[in-house]
Amino acid sequence: MQARAVALKTRPEGMPTVDNFQIIDIDVPEPQDGEIQVENVCMSVDPYMRGRMYDRKSYVPPFQIGEALTGGSIGKVVKSAHPDFQPGDYVSSAWGWREAYTAAADGIERLGEIVAPPSAYIGTIGMPGMTAYVGLLDVGALKDGETVFVSGAAGAVGSIVGQIAKLKGCRVIGSAGSDDKVQLLTDELGFDHAFNYNDGSLIGHIKEGAPEGLDVYFDNVGAEHLQAAIMCMRPFGRIPLCGAIATYNDTSPRPGPNNLSMAIGLGLTLRGFIVSHFNHLAPQFRKDMEGWVTSGQITSKETVHEGIENAGEAFIGLFTGANTGKMIVNF
Amino acid sequence: MQARAVALKTRPEGMPTVDNFQIIDIDVPEPQDGEIQVENVCMSVDPYMRGRMYDRKSYVPPFQIGEALTGGSIGKVVKSAHPDFQPGDYVSSAWGWREAYTAAADGIERLGEIVAPPSAYIGTIGMPGMTAYVGLLDVGALKDGETVFVSGAAGAVGSIVGQIAKLKGCRVIGSAGSDDKVQLLTDELGFDHAFNYNDGSLIGHIKEGAPEGLDVYFDNVGAEHLQAAIMCMRPFGRIPLCGAIATYNDTSPRPGPNNLSMAIGLGLTLRGFIVSHFNHLAPQFRKDMEGWVTSGQITSKETVHEGIENAGEAFIGLFTGANTGKMIVNF
Repeated sequence: MQARAVALKTRPEGMPTVDNFQIIDIDVPEPQDGEIQVENVCMSVDPYMRGRMYDRKSYVPPFQIGEALTGGSIGKVVKSAHPDFQPGDYVSSAWGWREAYTAAADGIERLGEIVAPPSAYIGTIGMPGMTAYVGLLDVGALKDGETVFVSGAAGAVGSIVGQIAKLKGCRVIGSAGSDDKVQLLTDELGFDHAFNYNDGSLIGHIKEGAPEGLDVYFDNVGAEHLQAAIMCMRPFGRIPLCGAIATYNDTSPRPGPNNLSMAIGLGLTLRGFIVSHFNHLAPQFRKDMEGWVTSGQITSKETVHEGIENAGEAFIGLFTGANTGKMIVNF
Repeated sequence: MQARAVALKTRPEGMPTVDNFQIIDIDVPEPQDGEIQVENVCMSVDPYMRGRMYDRKSYVPPFQIGEALTGGSIGKVVKSAHPDFQPGDYVSSAWGWREAYTAAADGIERLGEIVAPPSAYIGTIGMPGMTAYVGLLDVGALKDGETVFVSGAAGAVGSIVGQIAKLKGCRVIGSAGSDDKVQLLTDELGFDHAFNYNDGSLIGHIKEGAPEGLDVYFDNVGAEHLQAAIMCMRPFGRIPLCGAIATYNDTSPRPGPNNLSMAIGLGLTLRGFIVSHFNHLAPQFRKDMEGWVTSGQITSKETVHEGIENAGEAFIGLFTGANTGKMIVNF
């Protein structure tokens, strides 16, 4: 059979546009021995994908023009030539940006029993949630009762960072790009203080929320956010470097924080990470997060686009602040 | 009695000049109960002192115009009103920049038996040596056999960083500001590769010395050195941020590295520190370093100025590359 998929038509320069994307038809053959055929039910768009749209070396190879993009997706097995997979099983794979696929079952995760809607497994109980979990607890070495600032706090990762920190008895400050999101953070997600980063001084806002300074700054944004947070760190503070969405569409390198040498006297740690560095923690994460979600201690927010033809628009929306929580494309 | 001391006459703007300093006379009274009177035999000038010449908050308070500066010194007790100190004892104190002083014995370290010239105890067996030791082994979490790059490698800290790394079986690359220093690094101090940072591309030099990339970059310099090293780091590399001498005379904030987001995919750790964060390691350090120095495994280099009237010039020399190894002022 055939299925629709999304490919790059051209490489974006600066902010992507819908014209950078095209719908293509791909073959979805009968599964051979060890393979499964899957129909996707939803897919993920994530900021990191922007990096793969450049033709350059990075920690993942670049996407190629005219070839179906890849990324997180949740699907249902329709045909199986692998003994561990049955039709009807939910699976999590990197075969996103396409309505269906046939692939080797190795490397595809059978979700087993799920306790939340399938889309949660590419969101709060999936990669972004695990990014928040390992970034805050392991990379950030969060201690109970500390003060945490997270940027992009209404996003898929940030909204979970803040909620985990609250579970750990921390004071939590978040930044977001609109007043509605700010209200969500304080009224629904339990943040102690939140602010609109388009409005006023970053340092002023952070100091208002954390007069004693920050123990952890979880950086999703980079650029001015990182520089402002460094100004507000307490001695021996930790800065997990998770993303730099403010810079992903830059067409030339942007200078880094001009106050990095403050890290010397304060004994600060800045540590970059990607979630796959912590795959060994996946079982522990799933157990903890499923518990928090089913008990209502963690709330999952989603922004949903319908139909693969809108996947490009969903992706672009990550950089314009169109999403609250996890951006999902449903099929 | 009275003694000569050095004070700021004016605060330096940008690069300090000898006109920023003045010789003053200070009182050195008879020691009262719990005090000792000490004649200094040598004093230390260190890059960190530049920060204290600004009138701004930092991890140490600013120096005041017209008041004797402070800093590391080694002296000999001449009179004691404290039971643990006897005339003739060598002591290490923060009462540098003066020929003599009387002060409470608490907070002054009795050196006890020494195995090297007194000046070594403000150099290789003192603060700069311990900075190298804790920065490389603890902050940098050096593992045997890794590849290490140290900037300012012919300086008091850098020359010890490189030699400790060699002791640990590492491949060691160093940068310095003159061809003579480069030759010292490779011919006398055992570096595997060294280069003159005024000559050619930093990244090119680093890659020539470390084609497989760097596990640890020990940063004494900041600025372009830090940016170039980030380009060359291997996955999970560590960057102890020890100093940023290239920026200490800047009159306005300088942008940071434009490639800091590479830390994300590579899982890099940048960690600032000052040696006093690690005071608990001082006994272990002294034992190890005295052993390495007496066995000849670590070579101490010094550049010596004679007389307190030349202390200002010695200090300025730190920023013009006048020193090889530790800059000392002898009295």
